[in-house]
Amino acid sequence: MECAAAVRAALVTELTTRWPEGADGLAEMHRYALVPPGKLVRPLLVMWSALSVGGDIDQVLPVAVGFEAVHTGSLLHDDIIDGDLTRRGRPAIHSAFGPEQAIIAGNALFFECFAALGRAASRGMPDERVVAAMRVQAEAGVTACRGALAELSLAGELDTPIEDYVAVARAKTAALTRAACMVGALLGGGRSAEVHALATFGEHYGLAFQFHDDLLPYAQINPSGAAGTDKPADSDLRNHRPTLPVLLAHQRGSTIQRDMLRQVLLGPGDPGIRLARMCELVQATGALTAAQAMVAVHTRQALNALNLVPASVFRTRLADLATSSGDDTAVDSDALAI
Amino acid sequence: MECAAAVRAALVTELTTRWPEGADGLAEMHRYALVPPGKLVRPLLVMWSALSVGGDIDQVLPVAVGFEAVHTGSLLHDDIIDGDLTRRGRPAIHSAFGPEQAIIAGNALFFECFAALGRAASRGMPDERVVAAMRVQAEAGVTACRGALAELSLAGELDTPIEDYVAVARAKTAALTRAACMVGALLGGGRSAEVHALATFGEHYGLAFQFHDDLLPYAQINPSGAAGTDKPADSDLRNHRPTLPVLLAHQRGSTIQRDMLRQVLLGPGDPGIRLARMCELVQATGALTAAQAMVAVHTRQALNALNLVPASVFRTRLADLATSSGDDTAVDSDALAI
Repeated sequence: MECAAAVRAALVTELTTRWPEGADGLAEMHRYALVPPGKLVRPLLVMWSALSVGGDIDQVLPVAVGFEAVHTGSLLHDDIIDGDLTRRGRPAIHSAFGPEQAIIAGNALFFECFAALGRAASRGMPDERVVAAMRVQAEAGVTACRGALAELSLAGELDTPIEDYVAVARAKTAALTRAACMVGALLGGGRSAEVHALATFGEHYGLAFQFHDDLLPYAQINPSGAAGTDKPADSDLRNHRPTLPVLLAHQRGSTIQRDMLRQVLLGPGDPGIRLARMCELVQATGALTAAQAMVAVHTRQALNALNLVPASVFRTRLADLATSSGDDTAVDSDALAI
Repeated sequence: MECAAAVRAALVTELTTRWPEGADGLAEMHRYALVPPGKLVRPLLVMWSALSVGGDIDQVLPVAVGFEAVHTGSLLHDDIIDGDLTRRGRPAIHSAFGPEQAIIAGNALFFECFAALGRAASRGMPDERVVAAMRVQAEAGVTACRGALAELSLAGELDTPIEDYVAVARAKTAALTRAACMVGALLGGGRSAEVHALATFGEHYGLAFQFHDDLLPYAQINPSGAAGTDKPADSDLRNHRPTLPVLLAHQRGSTIQRDMLRQVLLGPGDPGIRLARMCELVQATGALTAAQAMVAVHTRQALNALNLVPASVFRTRLADLATSSGDDTAVDSDALAI
């Protein structure tokens, strides 16, 4: 706990120093988006991965914060694309500052993640590690965009095969968590096998994370369905976007249930009522349990990958992240029986 | 000409190889945006800068194309922000593929410019040069976003001091042309003084380029005002955005002219008629001549900076770009008396 708290404190200091109060308009938007920080999952993936292979904390810190920047940039754009007006219970950036402004502010955060690599170089990180990390970040960024684009095309597509949905999640979500771990391992000076193992960990972690996130509106922890999630619980439904539990329910449902599912997904109707109805269908078809099982599978695969990383307090932190689904909703993870 | 044609052909080959036909949805959008290529101004800035200090053509090519990618990414977003439905006489990406898709496709191009640096490394570019170039690209990207944000706040602001407008243009446009030249010089192995000189060249080139671009709707080459420009001639007017000639006209105009200017800029009224009216005001106040003089000043400063670069056919190409305003509208440049 001591160690985890210290690293988290260092991340928060790095973040608030990078985006101080009272700077210009761009910095003000970034500060609104980044401070106060969330659970800092991606920065922690970078830090624990780097430290688990012997990395230097000060050299890696800016890059860890850079991963929060790129993740936040994608959220700024996601909220525009999904028409979500709130984020973490506050007005989303595009609601507070305007959609044009939010597009631009998001773009700047993508460049910030490479500027962060430059700051690592200034702190003595060897050039060859910086270049290796840059390549991973750049490729992951393109892959995440490819995933975001593919996700748009899922709207209304209840016949999407589960493996196609997994491929979209792998690109949209897991590419960045994989890159966070891999970049940490590269900057930490990990051996090839360690870098590969941490990349595998990050990928399965990301898939478990996404599938857990998909479950939140249906997990009945909170009758409103909004338990702990950062975005409005009805966002995917409003966008006619089937997520893992919905696709599993469609796959497993009777003809009548499939028809009902289609009506609920495509609307019309009050989103709250549709969400409650979808909740019943996801449970009645056994999709909730099936989706939970997929979270468990990827969590296990993530933990297995860690076997190739030397045992340390840092490796334990990675395992802790994985077993709590590593997200802002850790309080809910018991109910998911991971 | 021989040399210029060969480098241009190499750029086109690199571009079309990077984005082949028949790839996935993301690549299809990128190909639509990037092929057939325009005048490739930014890639040529990278190439001539690199070659003028002794760089290797094959190692630099991917990075030159990367600059076209990042520039194109910003255009994809600009067209959404400005509500421009066409680009180069074709439907803009957001018209053809959808605004959400265009946001994502633009984002991917920002990451592509760093992936391009990775490809340069694969072709033997030394790591320290790659890292130096990455830092310049990343900082320029953030600066360009800061400029784009500042530009939004100019809407309706006819009292904007000219120096503030120049600062916005320096950030929004000149940061990237400066970076293109500086990255070329760094990757080409230029000495510090050469890198600095080429950065200065690129900055003044970018300012001259932007101010020339601002003049196009008012240059009366073509009565429709759309002479050679890539975006609709009434775009800035539709967005109530004063550009250099409009600000100069406001600064120099009589009280009556200023009132008319404000009415024309803020509308309402048919954009075509407002554009013709603005044209008259820009000419009547002498703003056209004053703006042309500013283009000439920055062109001269760009050329002066080249004195610190060894004479070569490549340096001559840079000078040629500058004296033709270096953009897609070179045919118009005579009329601007640069």
